[in-house]
Amino acid sequence: MDNNFQLANKQACLDQLRKLGIDYISHDHDPAPTIEEVLKIKVSDGTAYVKNLLYVDKKQNYYLILANHTTQVGKQFWKTLGLSSGNMRLSKEEQIGEALKSSKGNVNPFAVANDTNNLVKNIIIDEVLRKYQRLALHPIENTTTVEISLDDLQNKFLKILNRQFTVLQLTDEAAEQKQEQQQKEQQKDQQNLQTLAITVKKSDFSEWYQQVIRKAELIEYYDVSGCYILRPWAYFIWEQIQRFFDDLIRTEEVENTYFPMFLSGKHLNKEKEHVEGFKAEVAWVTKYGESDLNEPLAIRPTSETIMYPAFAKWVQSHRDLPLKVNQWTNIVRWEFKFPTPFIRTREFLWQEGHTAHSTREEAVKQVYTILDFYEQVYGELLAVPVIKGIKTESEKFAGGDFTTTVETIIPQNGRGLQGATSHHLGQNFSKMFEINFEDDKKQKSFVWQTSWGLTTRSIGAMIMFHGDDKGLVLPPRIAKYQIVIIPIIHKDLHEQQLNERCEQIRQILIKQKLRVHLDSRDNYSPGWKFNKWEQKGVPIRLEIGPGEFKNNEVRVVQRYDNQKYQIKLEELNQLNQILDNIHNAMLHKARFDLNSRIKQAENWKDFMSQLNQRNTILTKWCQREECEKQVKTKSGIESKEKDSEVDGQIQLTGSAKTLCMPLQQDQIQEGEICFHCGQQAKKYVLWGRSY
Amino acid sequence: MDNNFQLANKQACLDQLRKLGIDYISHDHDPAPTIEEVLKIKVSDGTAYVKNLLYVDKKQNYYLILANHTTQVGKQFWKTLGLSSGNMRLSKEEQIGEALKSSKGNVNPFAVANDTNNLVKNIIIDEVLRKYQRLALHPIENTTTVEISLDDLQNKFLKILNRQFTVLQLTDEAAEQKQEQQQKEQQKDQQNLQTLAITVKKSDFSEWYQQVIRKAELIEYYDVSGCYILRPWAYFIWEQIQRFFDDLIRTEEVENTYFPMFLSGKHLNKEKEHVEGFKAEVAWVTKYGESDLNEPLAIRPTSETIMYPAFAKWVQSHRDLPLKVNQWTNIVRWEFKFPTPFIRTREFLWQEGHTAHSTREEAVKQVYTILDFYEQVYGELLAVPVIKGIKTESEKFAGGDFTTTVETIIPQNGRGLQGATSHHLGQNFSKMFEINFEDDKKQKSFVWQTSWGLTTRSIGAMIMFHGDDKGLVLPPRIAKYQIVIIPIIHKDLHEQQLNERCEQIRQILIKQKLRVHLDSRDNYSPGWKFNKWEQKGVPIRLEIGPGEFKNNEVRVVQRYDNQKYQIKLEELNQLNQILDNIHNAMLHKARFDLNSRIKQAENWKDFMSQLNQRNTILTKWCQREECEKQVKTKSGIESKEKDSEVDGQIQLTGSAKTLCMPLQQDQIQEGEICFHCGQQAKKYVLWGRSY
Repeated sequence: MDNNFQLANKQACLDQLRKLGIDYISHDHDPAPTIEEVLKIKVSDGTAYVKNLLYVDKKQNYYLILANHTTQVGKQFWKTLGLSSGNMRLSKEEQIGEALKSSKGNVNPFAVANDTNNLVKNIIIDEVLRKYQRLALHPIENTTTVEISLDDLQNKFLKILNRQFTVLQLTDEAAEQKQEQQQKEQQKDQQNLQTLAITVKKSDFSEWYQQVIRKAELIEYYDVSGCYILRPWAYFIWEQIQRFFDDLIRTEEVENTYFPMFLSGKHLNKEKEHVEGFKAEVAWVTKYGESDLNEPLAIRPTSETIMYPAFAKWVQSHRDLPLKVNQWTNIVRWEFKFPTPFIRTREFLWQEGHTAHSTREEAVKQVYTILDFYEQVYGELLAVPVIKGIKTESEKFAGGDFTTTVETIIPQNGRGLQGATSHHLGQNFSKMFEINFEDDKKQKSFVWQTSWGLTTRSIGAMIMFHGDDKGLVLPPRIAKYQIVIIPIIHKDLHEQQLNERCEQIRQILIKQKLRVHLDSRDNYSPGWKFNKWEQKGVPIRLEIGPGEFKNNEVRVVQRYDNQKYQIKLEELNQLNQILDNIHNAMLHKARFDLNSRIKQAENWKDFMSQLNQRNTILTKWCQREECEKQVKTKSGIESKEKDSEVDGQIQLTGSAKTLCMPLQQDQIQEGEICFHCGQQAKKYVLWGRSY
Repeated sequence: MDNNFQLANKQACLDQLRKLGIDYISHDHDPAPTIEEVLKIKVSDGTAYVKNLLYVDKKQNYYLILANHTTQVGKQFWKTLGLSSGNMRLSKEEQIGEALKSSKGNVNPFAVANDTNNLVKNIIIDEVLRKYQRLALHPIENTTTVEISLDDLQNKFLKILNRQFTVLQLTDEAAEQKQEQQQKEQQKDQQNLQTLAITVKKSDFSEWYQQVIRKAELIEYYDVSGCYILRPWAYFIWEQIQRFFDDLIRTEEVENTYFPMFLSGKHLNKEKEHVEGFKAEVAWVTKYGESDLNEPLAIRPTSETIMYPAFAKWVQSHRDLPLKVNQWTNIVRWEFKFPTPFIRTREFLWQEGHTAHSTREEAVKQVYTILDFYEQVYGELLAVPVIKGIKTESEKFAGGDFTTTVETIIPQNGRGLQGATSHHLGQNFSKMFEINFEDDKKQKSFVWQTSWGLTTRSIGAMIMFHGDDKGLVLPPRIAKYQIVIIPIIHKDLHEQQLNERCEQIRQILIKQKLRVHLDSRDNYSPGWKFNKWEQKGVPIRLEIGPGEFKNNEVRVVQRYDNQKYQIKLEELNQLNQILDNIHNAMLHKARFDLNSRIKQAENWKDFMSQLNQRNTILTKWCQREECEKQVKTKSGIESKEKDSEVDGQIQLTGSAKTLCMPLQQDQIQEGEICFHCGQQAKKYVLWGRSY
């Protein structure tokens, strides 16, 4: 790639961003030379408005500062760089021209590409900007604003220019305190606004998702990147998944247990392929208090290497088999990709099951039984359809033999999402950890093992599938409140009588083991409450106003399809059935939506066309790793060359990879060929862009 | 203290150990000059037999090596010290005399005290020894062996001599592999022995505890110090505690949630007293993969400072209060005291609840409601009696206002054990984290907070209370199997018929919602099974032999009191009641045992006398911190001067501290005085040595 490009204008800049594989959102507008003008441009939530300041010292060294618009840029940070603030001046028009071939009102980090004489000595980035998902910047010209991530700016754009950058706290201390105070006020304001409706439609998917999870009170943001607070509304869902899955695995005589979170490097390193798959993401504890640990300890990214030394102690004879344990824990993987609540987080919750068997056959059977359980969690609990399949060799679990998976496809953008995986580990780990047993003929053998995991990511899939423009839509079996009762006060109706009726209904529903909430707060209007509980996704709202009171009825409003009807009080026992019907209807619709995102392709052109229409593609495939790799690379390159908008929607870019080889598939005949390389096909495989 | 003591003989050595406050176990025996002889001496489980090697180089520098007896001391470690193995020779008799005033067969680290000319340049300790609880060493003379901890040897004995020591891996690599292999074989042997009976009586308490937790399959040891594996038999107990406590707090409308495990130093440091209380024990993540984190992250030692910034966002108005959340998580505290499974571990499981209220009154009420719940967990579930009380100012939660506690006393040794605590935090944290609200008069106030926690330590207390010489005894409500059915095969009885009968009984009991296990394995004898399930503490064993079969009966054997009786098949529905009776009887006995460890004292002499008879002591107290401190110091000093054995039992040493001021206590009158300082007494307080 050409590292010495210059960017004469907006078009050149945008072309370059695409060439570098940088995702951006762009907005055209009237010239916005000052930050005040910039603030009028509507950008996405989580995007920072950036002030660009070009300073110059007496020796004509330039320093470009990118600061959040609220940051009061102080003087003291210069010291950190070994410089004196007294020597620094804001650049004048001609100096900006000299350094960046640009002008006042057009200072931006992209223009550094034009600094062919290396006059800009340092690019200083406001520490505060780290907290934002994207930065709003002008691409050379101030008639357009692009939103790009700081990460892309640093690691894709500035890096290729070989430019140094320094992340610093720019405010002086007194100013900082004031700013903290302001931020707090803003947070409180934001809080007050939070119960207001979601400001975007689901078609603006990424922004919609960010708003839904906060406004439905599932997630609170946290100040450690990639870590989020699971609020009770979300954690309840996880508890339902735990109960449901625990009941399933109990039928397989799996026992719950707890192994330590810390792991010595020695054990982690024991299985080579395994450690290669995880080591870049492992978080290390090296200190306690003020002291260094003798040996750093890894935090579990998964527990194979934590558990299996103990397995070696416990398994002696075939009578000790099968050994089946499961644990519900937190897990840490320090991933590099941009974090998304539930979907990709650095700390997450999961269950991990581990079994050891005397025969391969028994272990393989275990793998598929668990896979069926995962399908049930998704289908019967979350109303999310999945496709059962096998991962290709290059996508399987590091160190395992083969990996089975439940995959789903998010209808809104056609991205594949791995729902849960169940691995056959073969004897790879048992040989490394010497887990062997004496069979009934006194012969020593290594055990056959499985491991399998399901994470809080499943909640993210559920939100993405069912939510709508009004907010979250919860399938009934995981909703903390399945039903909310809202009294509608009216001058014709005695308030106390109304409340008593509502309480009476609540008691009836509790007896039916329904999870029901009566919202009798008198400081909010019924309309406000309707919005509130719709946003939080409660499956059924029961309204009781003067008409219902008089007629001994309730008005039922179904969240997922907004259907409204009256039922008599004596028919309240139908609600369990109604909730089941809602579940089934949601799953049915979700399955339809998923299927509409699976297309077939016989050749490359059709493949790319379907991919760019946000679909996953089922193709015949030769099953060669080399071919898989080429498809991935080529689809990535060709995606990037497409226009960024199709039918008014932002185009996804990125490579297509194999999601799985579905278990249910037609037999491929001799002579049928791979859609890509033309060699004899062996399996149908599902391709797609993925989370 | 005299740092330049010399140790002429065994007596001088033992006296010195006591003077330095070093706990030891000693065994007298025939002279054991070689490691082969030493291996014949029976020492405690978890104690290493140590080879002591004195090397000398050409310049007459001496090096003392302490190696595990199985360690093949290699040559390569010398390089680590900048020395050459070629120059090293084992010392001869006269050289040992010169350096240590000792002789061959009497080399030991205590003799370093006699090296007045500083000839011993370094003391090298085998890294492997870190894994052992204690080391077996001769106190100068080889007719006695003492077991002391490496920590005491390093930090109490060698430190006072101002001696350097270096912990090193002593084996060369090839040797190490061989050794690993040997260790593995030994582990397997040990495993085979594990189902054999516990080798000590409960009166040998510490050793008994170590054996019970392993042989009942509650705990597996793990290679990170202070971390243990909770096996299914133990984790099931924790799940019962979770369910029971979740049901209780649900009545208080507490919601479960999950906050991140990581914490930036900035927030941790916000509440000064709080951070002072925890910072020495905090584990820090500083790296991921090969990279350093920009800012180290603390792992939660407790979550006040993780949660309260979010509380500040959520609480705006009095309508947002009370706010009540709870989470079940792992917790890390890198404690320095010697770890004991369940009782003191570096990673443990707990629940932590946090509430915020608009008035002090409401918060205080919450504190005591939770304290009652903790009493119920202990009493109604674990059959462990507790004393509710308030901690003194010096023992309260760091940063809180006051701490309430449920304390128990382990009857075997009279040690106090803090069972769970419920803190009133006042407004200390809300002021630091600006958690304020607008009341109904639009006035701003800070919230009043509580926090409260219960840990897996509760399981340890249960084991200590109820276990007996045969092993674990489980109270029925937490037992994974409440009943085990054992068929007794006999030539007069058709095996299939017997098994069918057993299965039929199992089905009847399952319908009664009893947790029942049928042990119909044909490769173990009934006697072996009796032992096995007794060791694991199953409350009831049902035996069915020819007599029972014929008479339509079962034989009931109660674990806790070994009572045996027949019941008719049609009386099987009594078993639920029988289990309840067992629970009540166990709790009753436990309460009696606990009460027998609480004595009163009016003066110092009686106080020390009771303390040394392994009791806790309830005294009148002036409630002054200064007085409390003096009692602690004085009792510590006077304990150490006592003989090490009383009535053939090892004497506990260590200070007495305040356990709590019991809630139920008599009013103290004007003129009644503090047992220690003689000033006006204010409260009764319970003192004791504690876990």
